[in-house]
Amino acid sequence: MRGRFEEPLDPVVARFNSSIGFDWELLPYDLIGSRAHVRMLGQVGIISPSEMAQLVAGLDQIEQAWRTGEFQPDPAWEDVHSAVETRLTVLLGDVGKKLHTARSRNDQVATDLRLYTRDHIQRLLNLLQQLQAVLVTLAEAHQTTLIPAYTHLQRAQPVSLAHHWLAYFEMFDRDRTRLVDCNRRLDVSPLGSGALAGTTLPIDRAYTAELLGFARPSANSLDAVSDRDYVVELLSALSLILTHLSRLSEELILWSSQEFGFISLTDSCATGSSLMPQKKNPDVPELIRGKTGRVFGHLLGMLTTLKGLPLAYNKDLQEDKEALFDAVRTSEDCLRVMAVFLEKGMVIRTERLAQAVTEDYSNATDAADYLVRQGIPFREAYQVIGALVRTALADGKLLQDLTLTEWQAAHPGFSEDIYAAIQPAQVVNARNSYGGTGLAQVRQALLAARARLAL
Amino acid sequence: MRGRFEEPLDPVVARFNSSIGFDWELLPYDLIGSRAHVRMLGQVGIISPSEMAQLVAGLDQIEQAWRTGEFQPDPAWEDVHSAVETRLTVLLGDVGKKLHTARSRNDQVATDLRLYTRDHIQRLLNLLQQLQAVLVTLAEAHQTTLIPAYTHLQRAQPVSLAHHWLAYFEMFDRDRTRLVDCNRRLDVSPLGSGALAGTTLPIDRAYTAELLGFARPSANSLDAVSDRDYVVELLSALSLILTHLSRLSEELILWSSQEFGFISLTDSCATGSSLMPQKKNPDVPELIRGKTGRVFGHLLGMLTTLKGLPLAYNKDLQEDKEALFDAVRTSEDCLRVMAVFLEKGMVIRTERLAQAVTEDYSNATDAADYLVRQGIPFREAYQVIGALVRTALADGKLLQDLTLTEWQAAHPGFSEDIYAAIQPAQVVNARNSYGGTGLAQVRQALLAARARLAL
Amino acid sequence: MRGRFEEPLDPVVARFNSSIGFDWELLPYDLIGSRAHVRMLGQVGIISPSEMAQLVAGLDQIEQAWRTGEFQPDPAWEDVHSAVETRLTVLLGDVGKKLHTARSRNDQVATDLRLYTRDHIQRLLNLLQQLQAVLVTLAEAHQTTLIPAYTHLQRAQPVSLAHHWLAYFEMFDRDRTRLVDCNRRLDVSPLGSGALAGTTLPIDRAYTAELLGFARPSANSLDAVSDRDYVVELLSALSLILTHLSRLSEELILWSSQEFGFISLTDSCATGSSLMPQKKNPDVPELIRGKTGRVFGHLLGMLTTLKGLPLAYNKDLQEDKEALFDAVRTSEDCLRVMAVFLEKGMVIRTERLAQAVTEDYSNATDAADYLVRQGIPFREAYQVIGALVRTALADGKLLQDLTLTEWQAAHPGFSEDIYAAIQPAQVVNARNSYGGTGLAQVRQALLAARARLAL
Amino acid sequence: MRGRFEEPLDPVVARFNSSIGFDWELLPYDLIGSRAHVRMLGQVGIISPSEMAQLVAGLDQIEQAWRTGEFQPDPAWEDVHSAVETRLTVLLGDVGKKLHTARSRNDQVATDLRLYTRDHIQRLLNLLQQLQAVLVTLAEAHQTTLIPAYTHLQRAQPVSLAHHWLAYFEMFDRDRTRLVDCNRRLDVSPLGSGALAGTTLPIDRAYTAELLGFARPSANSLDAVSDRDYVVELLSALSLILTHLSRLSEELILWSSQEFGFISLTDSCATGSSLMPQKKNPDVPELIRGKTGRVFGHLLGMLTTLKGLPLAYNKDLQEDKEALFDAVRTSEDCLRVMAVFLEKGMVIRTERLAQAVTEDYSNATDAADYLVRQGIPFREAYQVIGALVRTALADGKLLQDLTLTEWQAAHPGFSEDIYAAIQPAQVVNARNSYGGTGLAQVRQALLAARARLAL
Repeated sequence: MRGRFEEPLDPVVARFNSSIGFDWELLPYDLIGSRAHVRMLGQVGIISPSEMAQLVAGLDQIEQAWRTGEFQPDPAWEDVHSAVETRLTVLLGDVGKKLHTARSRNDQVATDLRLYTRDHIQRLLNLLQQLQAVLVTLAEAHQTTLIPAYTHLQRAQPVSLAHHWLAYFEMFDRDRTRLVDCNRRLDVSPLGSGALAGTTLPIDRAYTAELLGFARPSANSLDAVSDRDYVVELLSALSLILTHLSRLSEELILWSSQEFGFISLTDSCATGSSLMPQKKNPDVPELIRGKTGRVFGHLLGMLTTLKGLPLAYNKDLQEDKEALFDAVRTSEDCLRVMAVFLEKGMVIRTERLAQAVTEDYSNATDAADYLVRQGIPFREAYQVIGALVRTALADGKLLQDLTLTEWQAAHPGFSEDIYAAIQPAQVVNARNSYGGTGLAQVRQALLAARARLAL
Repeated sequence: MRGRFEEPLDPVVARFNSSIGFDWELLPYDLIGSRAHVRMLGQVGIISPSEMAQLVAGLDQIEQAWRTGEFQPDPAWEDVHSAVETRLTVLLGDVGKKLHTARSRNDQVATDLRLYTRDHIQRLLNLLQQLQAVLVTLAEAHQTTLIPAYTHLQRAQPVSLAHHWLAYFEMFDRDRTRLVDCNRRLDVSPLGSGALAGTTLPIDRAYTAELLGFARPSANSLDAVSDRDYVVELLSALSLILTHLSRLSEELILWSSQEFGFISLTDSCATGSSLMPQKKNPDVPELIRGKTGRVFGHLLGMLTTLKGLPLAYNKDLQEDKEALFDAVRTSEDCLRVMAVFLEKGMVIRTERLAQAVTEDYSNATDAADYLVRQGIPFREAYQVIGALVRTALADGKLLQDLTLTEWQAAHPGFSEDIYAAIQPAQVVNARNSYGGTGLAQVRQALLAARARLAL
Repeated sequence: MRGRFEEPLDPVVARFNSSIGFDWELLPYDLIGSRAHVRMLGQVGIISPSEMAQLVAGLDQIEQAWRTGEFQPDPAWEDVHSAVETRLTVLLGDVGKKLHTARSRNDQVATDLRLYTRDHIQRLLNLLQQLQAVLVTLAEAHQTTLIPAYTHLQRAQPVSLAHHWLAYFEMFDRDRTRLVDCNRRLDVSPLGSGALAGTTLPIDRAYTAELLGFARPSANSLDAVSDRDYVVELLSALSLILTHLSRLSEELILWSSQEFGFISLTDSCATGSSLMPQKKNPDVPELIRGKTGRVFGHLLGMLTTLKGLPLAYNKDLQEDKEALFDAVRTSEDCLRVMAVFLEKGMVIRTERLAQAVTEDYSNATDAADYLVRQGIPFREAYQVIGALVRTALADGKLLQDLTLTEWQAAHPGFSEDIYAAIQPAQVVNARNSYGGTGLAQVRQALLAARARLAL
Repeated sequence: MRGRFEEPLDPVVARFNSSIGFDWELLPYDLIGSRAHVRMLGQVGIISPSEMAQLVAGLDQIEQAWRTGEFQPDPAWEDVHSAVETRLTVLLGDVGKKLHTARSRNDQVATDLRLYTRDHIQRLLNLLQQLQAVLVTLAEAHQTTLIPAYTHLQRAQPVSLAHHWLAYFEMFDRDRTRLVDCNRRLDVSPLGSGALAGTTLPIDRAYTAELLGFARPSANSLDAVSDRDYVVELLSALSLILTHLSRLSEELILWSSQEFGFISLTDSCATGSSLMPQKKNPDVPELIRGKTGRVFGHLLGMLTTLKGLPLAYNKDLQEDKEALFDAVRTSEDCLRVMAVFLEKGMVIRTERLAQAVTEDYSNATDAADYLVRQGIPFREAYQVIGALVRTALADGKLLQDLTLTEWQAAHPGFSEDIYAAIQPAQVVNARNSYGGTGLAQVRQALLAARARLAL
């Protein structure tokens, strides 16, 4: 678009400047936006009904050519917007030159990008829901499977494996609400904001907003063309999704190690080594964990790009697209492949887990609580059991191996029923406070999770 | 807290490990949380009514000692939580040892941090509202002041200065909704989640949630003690607040330069040079712009810290506090000082602005729209005006300096009324589409802004 | 590579896992590495001379097929390494299966990536040198052109425009030394480190290092396969290059604004607006400035990916490539296009600059120094001139407009020669300390710059 | 410093603007810089010998007051530089007002910050060297201790534990060279660059550079006052140090888990739980791992702050200090405490390690290499062993448990000596290629490491 120019662009500059290599992804959204714009121009009489019909038909024809693969991006073009306008003018002649009436690329690309983002938020919501459904199914199957739970990667207390899966359910549930909030905030139509100040032509922005399914037109034209908050907000939400996936991945990697041995890997989701014939590697969770940095990087890159830009549009904003597209694609891929991995990539080794929860001191808190129920101040009970663990360790015994005499030497409050109180199944089941790992709580949590998913 | 330990901590390790140097900021929230916890323990009968009364009184006494400055952090202490428990035990004897019944530092610090965050979100909302109020006041005073608006820092089209201030109003309005969403999501009580699995004691989590003013108890204990999503989410929201402030700062810096000259700096918000006697510098917006990186850095640091942590609590999470506290403090400071700057730090040079809008080609679109209104396809009109600008530039003339003959040579559609159409006031006022800079639109936007602020 | 596997990879996982979509960029380096490896295997007798000859010929043939475009990546392949091995085996039969003897993909990809990085560091050094040469040429042409220099974007003191260009020369010169240091550090050959522990076969790592032009083989096999320091180090160096380019870009954008008007844009490196016919935008520096965030993001992403990875190779490391390739490509493009812009994209408006340096108070320090030379303590002189500026401003006068009486009222030390001392040319020329903007200094600096470039 | 101002700073602005809260850390460096400056002023005759002597004595007196704790920062002061000048003027009267002759805060703070950075690079080098010495000592003690080595956290091949420690030695060795390079690049004196253009007074910059121990004065005054490359470069180097520490920390955390059990924690470097009496947590490596994000955040924050700043000094640069100081302090702490942890915080469980290396398939590559030595193409041998592992797994056997008949059924090339070839000690020792884990190699590597440390 070179209204007042006499000489052509330097070819190095033209290549550097062109966005056609990546903004082609916006094509379907650009056509949706242009169709709405043209219908509005016709509606308010800025163009005639016949011109409107021709333009709509031309845009439909372009969409058809794109769907069949005939309309392909040419590296020589500046961007997707001028590609469409040019092709339309080839198709329709002078009428095509009316497409850009009362519009600027600034409000146009802002509209396209919101349409893209809205669409992909919907896809992300679906993928999150699917992953949550897998987690619920796993949780239902493992309500009475016990697993050591950790703080500081040291065994803390055993929990129901269902409880563990539901912790991730909660994280992804918050992720969904963040996406919904982001979507609600981006739900305004910038179309009609012009270059930055609106237009002198009698357009109807409420009508284009309605045609595009936006809640309302944006309230300030300067803001509308320079706002990329929703891009940052989505990148932040994706960064948290990846954070959650990275935590789950870390655990799956740990669990599949020979040392933990809590899961084994199936052939369908693991890969081998080029050198070591015995290897079977958890590539899926590793790669997800690795891609976390990539999404964080895009968030940071976008924030840096926006920092200190004066109003309104600046060319720097062209950098919004690749970061967003890649982060969205990466996040969608990771959600999809994590669901596949959880469903098909691992076998939970229940016998190993059953053994694991019996071989440590993770019932020590229960021994302290046992005394607390007799009125011993907690901190005192804590000291008693701490000392007991110390001597048991020195003797190479677990708490359940101590004789009643040894228990009573530590504190006279202990009786025979201490052994029942510190059995793993009891340790888990006794944590029956709301949100705890007691089986009744877990059953309630499962019902609630199912209900939330159905929404 | 060293239940099973025989030897003391190495002093280098103790210093490294201690958080008392920064988590003292949580003290008031820790006392609120402990009071609620103790009242619940009494309510359900885990401790006696008298024990409850003593503990509450002891916590009140500690708060009093803190308010008077008598209770001060000692570098030798491990953290704020054990400092309170220790002091309570000194005050009350054995009863103090019951404070930590049915609680872990893991759910305790999660509760404290949510209370802190909730409180500061409220402060940030107030500061945003105050800044928006200043913007509205400025906008009301400058509805008919015209200012060049820019894309690519090249003059694009003139706008009402009120329209410009209201663009920032919109940004800060979105910021408020993000804080509200963050607050809604953090509005759950982790208290009672214990170390990670709940507790065997018959606590009432709904009651503590209610006492603390949280909407409900958290649904999964593992998630509750390891969730820091709200920290990241607040840091993201603050990063966007700083992004908006950095854009406004950049403009204020530009405007106060001799070249722009749109504002002059008052003595009360500017500083000088140690060497150059003539200097008067816009330190406030520069420093705000500089602090943008700081807040981004905290966001990024926090995300990195969370990446790949297995469930549940890991010591890495101790790093959540300093980043959050500093980002909150920085953001609050920047919002406060920006409001001061806008109110007292600058004088808008209206005479300079009035001249500026007459000395460029930013009315060229209006000349094209003039033809469009006669049915000329936009792209054709655009080419006509592009050529006209080119020749005018070559002749050292502005568009308003061209003779009617010159206009008509460019296109026969031009008549005498072209001169009226391209006057700055008309250029601004004609952009009367919704959200545009036309004066009627700006008046409407101001009314709407006032209404939104009152909420 | 699925030694012990019975079932195929799930297709979703296969797609997610495959790196062929981006590691194809390593193909030429992979062939170089494999050729050296094979020659070494022959040299030490692990394979026969004839096998070696066949393998080398086969690798040459593959390179040929790649150069002619016949060998293209297939999305179904796992990675570039297995693609080469498979094709070689198709070409050569069983001999091809000997390619991977005494090697793992872990040391192979580490070698490839170092070869890639070394190669591109060389290209970046050349591009930096070319950009510096353009700066020196500009500086030579503008030794006596004066321009206002700024602190806080407020006019500080005038300088020679040559001095300004040479400031950027210095920055890019440091950038070159950082690349050289990075290159020196990466100059070790990981080939022969095997999966992570070396190999049982009698390889000669010094020989492959020599064939590949590396200074020496790496000293520790575990480190060698998991070290990506050089990737981070290059990304850091690129981040600083982009930081420097972003500062230069910011200035070019400012200078091309109507308000500064220090340069005008040529047609060959500027673009227009789709709506506003008059627009001519500095897209090149804007886009460079915008891409700064992109490179920062890659640095951050890579650091995050590496954080907390246990030794040795983890699949997360597959994420090293795209970030690096994109950052390198972006940086190379930005350096190239900035040189084009400086050469062809702008015209320096010397008349405007000549006027600019006469219209402000940036000679105030010289008036203070005038008194200092008479023995007045600097802080006192500073206060005298500060007061003088204040009254001059109030009267709408510049310092040069004050009468001698006014000067002497401020301080008796002033005589007629104060007028000469505060003329812009004198102000610039008098700053004759080493590294200052005095013309003799600038001439020296130019000579030194020329000399450093020739190296 | 308010030369031309009539009204005072608004108190909110004054607080926001002041840097005394953190730049006090520069005080010793500021005094060093000022002393050199004053001696030079005397040397060239800008001030008299007596004035010089008084100023030096005054600066000494201030240093004394600081050392004794009598000179403390007051929140009301603007910055450390004006605090010194003011105090000096109180001490000396009018002579104090000569301190700032031929100097600006811009070159002054640039000098101070370089002195600070140079000093702390030296401390960091020492801390790295001490940590490396600990690693070498550990390696010497564990040359024949075998440990499983991992790729993808799956057991790959056993290695000498010494080899493992030496991998980290290599990383920290590279870190040292990066610090040395950074130091070499920052080794220029900006003093005398003035505000940005040099000075009109006849200063001798080579003399101050020499007095300050810098290699030379900086070459361009504009660059000198706005260059913060060395801050970014140090933050990058620190980010890699923390990356290495985070990897080591991750391994120590894994190793101290019950599942790995490769080390046990001593009391002196571990902490417990407030609730769970049995807990003993690896807080030190966890906290180090967590602080990695903090340092990355500072790097990123600093880069963001610098992005797009026009020349020369801008107030944004005030943000350089806190990030740098905190990152330096954090890195120094982490290096120091990691050395303590390795020395006193863990006990290596050699019996557990000895068992671990016998219980997996990590000798499979050796079985393949066994066939390769008979001329079988590697990829074929790999397939043979892959199949063998598959059937062994199905039968619940390790490779060493297979009968010779089973070996020979897989491939006729196997004889009795296969059992010797796949024993862990042999597997390790046979990897005798340079840089491999074979014991002879490890001994060589240890000698080389000792030698490098002595430098």
